[in-house]
Amino acid sequence: MADKPHVLIVGAGAIGSFYGAILKRAGCRVDVVLRSAADTVASDGFAISSPLGDLSFHPDQVHGPEDRAQDAPDYVVCCLKVLPDIDRVAILAPWVGAQTRIVLIENGIDIEPAIADAFPDNLLISCLAFIAVSRVRPGVIEHKAYGRLTIGGWPDGLGDHCRRFGALCEAGGINIEYSEHVVGARWQKSVWNSPFNPLSVLADGADTLTMLDTPGGEALVRAMMAEVMAVAAADGHPMPDSTIDEYIAGTRAMPAYRNSMALDYRNGRPMEIDAILGNVVAIAQRLDVPVPRLETVRVALRIRAANQV
Amino acid sequence: MADKPHVLIVGAGAIGSFYGAILKRAGCRVDVVLRSAADTVASDGFAISSPLGDLSFHPDQVHGPEDRAQDAPDYVVCCLKVLPDIDRVAILAPWVGAQTRIVLIENGIDIEPAIADAFPDNLLISCLAFIAVSRVRPGVIEHKAYGRLTIGGWPDGLGDHCRRFGALCEAGGINIEYSEHVVGARWQKSVWNSPFNPLSVLADGADTLTMLDTPGGEALVRAMMAEVMAVAAADGHPMPDSTIDEYIAGTRAMPAYRNSMALDYRNGRPMEIDAILGNVVAIAQRLDVPVPRLETVRVALRIRAANQV
Repeated sequence: MADKPHVLIVGAGAIGSFYGAILKRAGCRVDVVLRSAADTVASDGFAISSPLGDLSFHPDQVHGPEDRAQDAPDYVVCCLKVLPDIDRVAILAPWVGAQTRIVLIENGIDIEPAIADAFPDNLLISCLAFIAVSRVRPGVIEHKAYGRLTIGGWPDGLGDHCRRFGALCEAGGINIEYSEHVVGARWQKSVWNSPFNPLSVLADGADTLTMLDTPGGEALVRAMMAEVMAVAAADGHPMPDSTIDEYIAGTRAMPAYRNSMALDYRNGRPMEIDAILGNVVAIAQRLDVPVPRLETVRVALRIRAANQV
Repeated sequence: MADKPHVLIVGAGAIGSFYGAILKRAGCRVDVVLRSAADTVASDGFAISSPLGDLSFHPDQVHGPEDRAQDAPDYVVCCLKVLPDIDRVAILAPWVGAQTRIVLIENGIDIEPAIADAFPDNLLISCLAFIAVSRVRPGVIEHKAYGRLTIGGWPDGLGDHCRRFGALCEAGGINIEYSEHVVGARWQKSVWNSPFNPLSVLADGADTLTMLDTPGGEALVRAMMAEVMAVAAADGHPMPDSTIDEYIAGTRAMPAYRNSMALDYRNGRPMEIDAILGNVVAIAQRLDVPVPRLETVRVALRIRAANQV
């Protein structure tokens, strides 16, 4: 690896643009691959407002999806949506060299195996982003709050490659939490996401407090959280019983909040149903854990998505 | 009772206007109580197109909600929506005389006790309508198909009062099915309504075939039907196991269909959440029957309604 690490961001929506800016601030060479608006970004760069200051930057190179790598980057950072009709492996393949580390900054459960299977000889770093950021229009990003990454090797452990990538992010100005068990960390996040994200969509974009304060709402959220925790425990990632109380209290302490799935829905964008919820139900079925509430919500969401087309 | 039975329709929306027309065709005196548009209906009558022919008619009297009865009718036919903020007892009270039979043509489970408790000395006739009818605008009704009533005494049995009212409806041109166990008939209808109505709303107005054909959709509908049947059995109204297969086959044999709750939702009208689904869950809780899917859908609907305001 050269003194100046070479990073390629694949999928520069809100998340990718933000972490690209962070790595640029850390002194990396930052290239991007964009599906759309490559010309705009090539000429104007990214405009990123943030509580951290003005994070606007010009990528060193802007690639369209048909371009091919001249020199393989040190890190390919995948910030793609996890959707059935996005072939992440095919999109990443042209850019992954023998020494390239693959970094996933993506939502959901069980999203790593497809990548690990396709690139078995590359180190894989799995990251969870805790961030409120949105794309105002192509190339224009509004970072509202947070930004912490939880970083771990996949399927577990924490090699030097994880620490080095984390150090770059810290140098760029964000907080890092390392996890020896990143899959467990994903399950923890899933305990929150699995009820709140889909229920919000079914309720036409209801915020967290509306969900909790509707009669029966908090009880349903708690029951769905318990279902996720039962699946996680069966999958080898038990959590303390106090988790649910802590999540509910934490959510009530935050301002009313609309999650990314609700925002995707309201903006007519496809929803990460499988990554957020479907994979939880699939694992539950494989491990024979009953999840009637999660399954109900998953199917209702699917019907809704089918009716949206 | 006079030779010409005196009927008062309370709540002359689509359902009330249609059955008012039927009873008018049967030779009854038909008065109506309207919450709105009383002036329009008083001058123009109801315009009702129907496969049965032109059912348009002028009511003998049109009352506003503040009017009071001159002479008590033989039948008060209640076609009100069953909603928390509609006080059916208060609306009916001014019109119910000592000899008045109260007829309910309303959707849902457990909708009779409030009326029976308030008018303990009046005969109560409970009817289920199988009909596709909608209000185009005040006073203008489009009857599309069906129209059959299932009629029974409440809580059970079939007195002469039921047969006489049914004979009037038949004389007006619709089919009647008598039931000694009208509560059981309501449970049977609930087996269909409890999954299809709320799921359609959660999916933004999906039709029956979209619901069944989405992956996992038919399985969820079947599981919800089984939950309703378990509650019905615990409440003393068992159904044969074949019921679910028959409902699914019947629904698949019909054209894709949007139910009344979905139409209410799409038109910004309040939904009969409690009558259709909430009362099923309440009875399940009282009888200790687990209904996780029904409860999930009920709460999701409530959150949605809370978010709609």
